[in-house]
Amino acid sequence: MPDRRTTADLQPTLDEVTGLLQHHRALEALAHRQDTPQRMLVEQLQLRQNAVDLQRRIRALHPADLAAILQLLPYDDRAMVWQSLEARQAADAVVELDAVVRASLIAATERSRMREIAARLDPDDLAWVASELPSEVLRDAMRSLAASDRQLVRETVEYPENSVGAVMTADVAAVRESETIASALADLRRRSELPRQLDRVFVVDARNVLVGSITLQALALGQQGLQISSVMEIDPVAFKPGDSVAQAARVFERYDLVSVPVVNDRYKLVGRLMIDAVVDFIRVTADKDTLGMAGLRGAEDLFASVWQSARNRSLWLFVNLVTAFAATRFIGLFESTIRELVALATLMPIVASIGGNTGNQTVALVIRGLAFEQISRNSTMHLLRKEIIVGLLNGVMWGGLVGVFAGITYKHARLGGIMTTAIILNLVIAAAVGVIVPLGLQRAGRDPAQGASVLLTFMTDSMGFFLFLGLARLFL
Amino acid sequence: MPDRRTTADLQPTLDEVTGLLQHHRALEALAHRQDTPQRMLVEQLQLRQNAVDLQRRIRALHPADLAAILQLLPYDDRAMVWQSLEARQAADAVVELDAVVRASLIAATERSRMREIAARLDPDDLAWVASELPSEVLRDAMRSLAASDRQLVRETVEYPENSVGAVMTADVAAVRESETIASALADLRRRSELPRQLDRVFVVDARNVLVGSITLQALALGQQGLQISSVMEIDPVAFKPGDSVAQAARVFERYDLVSVPVVNDRYKLVGRLMIDAVVDFIRVTADKDTLGMAGLRGAEDLFASVWQSARNRSLWLFVNLVTAFAATRFIGLFESTIRELVALATLMPIVASIGGNTGNQTVALVIRGLAFEQISRNSTMHLLRKEIIVGLLNGVMWGGLVGVFAGITYKHARLGGIMTTAIILNLVIAAAVGVIVPLGLQRAGRDPAQGASVLLTFMTDSMGFFLFLGLARLFL
Repeated sequence: MPDRRTTADLQPTLDEVTGLLQHHRALEALAHRQDTPQRMLVEQLQLRQNAVDLQRRIRALHPADLAAILQLLPYDDRAMVWQSLEARQAADAVVELDAVVRASLIAATERSRMREIAARLDPDDLAWVASELPSEVLRDAMRSLAASDRQLVRETVEYPENSVGAVMTADVAAVRESETIASALADLRRRSELPRQLDRVFVVDARNVLVGSITLQALALGQQGLQISSVMEIDPVAFKPGDSVAQAARVFERYDLVSVPVVNDRYKLVGRLMIDAVVDFIRVTADKDTLGMAGLRGAEDLFASVWQSARNRSLWLFVNLVTAFAATRFIGLFESTIRELVALATLMPIVASIGGNTGNQTVALVIRGLAFEQISRNSTMHLLRKEIIVGLLNGVMWGGLVGVFAGITYKHARLGGIMTTAIILNLVIAAAVGVIVPLGLQRAGRDPAQGASVLLTFMTDSMGFFLFLGLARLFL
Repeated sequence: MPDRRTTADLQPTLDEVTGLLQHHRALEALAHRQDTPQRMLVEQLQLRQNAVDLQRRIRALHPADLAAILQLLPYDDRAMVWQSLEARQAADAVVELDAVVRASLIAATERSRMREIAARLDPDDLAWVASELPSEVLRDAMRSLAASDRQLVRETVEYPENSVGAVMTADVAAVRESETIASALADLRRRSELPRQLDRVFVVDARNVLVGSITLQALALGQQGLQISSVMEIDPVAFKPGDSVAQAARVFERYDLVSVPVVNDRYKLVGRLMIDAVVDFIRVTADKDTLGMAGLRGAEDLFASVWQSARNRSLWLFVNLVTAFAATRFIGLFESTIRELVALATLMPIVASIGGNTGNQTVALVIRGLAFEQISRNSTMHLLRKEIIVGLLNGVMWGGLVGVFAGITYKHARLGGIMTTAIILNLVIAAAVGVIVPLGLQRAGRDPAQGASVLLTFMTDSMGFFLFLGLARLFL
């Protein structure tokens, strides 16, 4: 019985590849030493043998596994494996890579080699990576395509990012409504190659207008003499190329779909959107939300160079620095008050911190609600009111606790009361800002995950300091 | 030509349902007033007509759309629509709901009604919602099942959460390797009902041991006389019921799969894992990461009651309060230093804040890397070293800028130097903690998204205050 693969654990392969690479490095170091000609020859042979071993190990991998291995390797190792790939392998792997890793590998590859790789991409894949290719590499690759394929790539590239048109495949299987099941099957058999992951074929009329769809199951198991139009599902969900993938993703999820036809404005069939493109989109979007909230401009290759990483992070760090500076100006206003009671300096970060925390909880929930389209026009006010009440409740509860604790620690009841009041007010502000900021960013056509957290923290820090120290000046 | 649906926009339906509900409320308010018997009769009739309209509107909806509408409605409206559903509709919708919304609706439903609803769930769906049903409702629903179905539900419920066994379906279509394509198709035709979304059927030997799989495409289009064993794909990816869905999701994504067989330890076919279960898992997990980093214990129904929301958020708020208190104790140590130079109180939050920000960037990247399995044993040290260098670089750059700025603002060069030094040190600590904490939580078998951020902020706040004020005491 063959060894059956029940999962796809890459760790053993990764260990093996890493071992081969280390060996390679050691051999290279040896080969660069001055030595007797005889020993140098032996070392050269060993080096070549090692390269052959590596190549053999890699050749056996599924392109998706190869891509995963590349992503798991630190930068130098990754570059070494990438260089050792044949153009065909590199072409297969490059479409499977994470976009950030792909971009960095393409940037590090010589033009002539990149041309060879691009020449081996099929039209759909070429369109998929087109935006990351150097323009002359893309131009050369396009030139070698048939006119219709070139047209296809050109159209796909022109669709905006995250539109259905940009991620659909033009490779569809359609049958006529007037055919019988038997003749439809015969037609499909005649095609030299069928689209992958075919769960259903689309049904069109004589003018290629979409009229329905039929599952392969119905084709395979239905009575062969029946007419397609009598067994197809009519009025299927269909997308336009200009629809957003976000919208499409929600439809796929809601109805558990595998493939959906894409039609133009005259409802003619132009493509097919597959679940795997949708899964990619969901991953990348969720990812962008998590990273955006943490103040990163975009996904980042974990093994990117230090400079690339520093650049990816610097924008929001800078913004944060400016807002932190601005927020602490509110402290500056009250330096004389602090001088009178230094305990204020010790306690004020608590007021700011708990405000930031409750506010960020609200921000995260609102961003999630927006992503899932769970916030409708009708319910915004309801949500705002509810969050403010939750903030008030948390403020009374935790603010009360903190106030008592601070009052006892500093044997100063009024200080405790001021702290409680400041926390309650700050949490109410945090709740309101936490709802308004992401919704406002969304309505302004911006990504709510980017910046919502920074804006919120600026507000809760400023207000935390201002309320606490201001109340202290008034009442102490 | 029928009105063709190219997207699935629910806003018009939502507006209509909301309108009917508002009308209903207004009518109810009228009906409760004292009035002439004649007018009361008219109002009663209007109320009944409104209920019929609502019912008619809802009956036309796809169960998934009904569930989406329920989720979009504020709490009271949602309860009203839910109450008005027939048991059959409620059963169809309940499996489509978000888990948190489902749990709150089930909790608010009377036992007797919940029994009626549960009695209408098929075995797979019953197993899916079993953990959220009151135990006697589940017991009654189980009692009405056939013995084999009851066994199925019992087994599914026993699989741990997020295992393949818990989300697979037992509804599989298998053919024998010894059959011909024609006889396999005839067998499939004889089955009264076939599994939904059938992209491929699994091939088993006489003892039900999985030996391969064959796409419906190959069945439908292959030569009818060929033997299955000669055209099937051998050695397919298969999962065990105990495998984690996280692992399975990566395999689905990596190889762009739609369905995968599930086998027991003796490699006998026991179920099928579908892409839609995987998509749900990816959504929920990504979601948990985003929410967990923001300090929420779990997903939260946006329209949950105030008390439920407050409870969901209180744990991490409390933890944060304690850590904030602990961190500010470091300020307490230096109150005399602050009294000498109050500017220290104004500037110290900046040192803490920029530390928290860089650290959280690292935390988010590491959590993402863990989710995508992009961090292998081999590369942890590499990653740690890299992040520390990035931290150092950012520290020198932004710390330098802040130091100069602070030095000029307060006309105090040494204060600026101390601030720069404290920021550099804090960013290096933040980078190290940002890598170590999520990796440590993961290795300890915990969810890295829950708590990593709080732990990190505690470290960067404490160290920010301690380093800045400590250096100030030493050198000012």
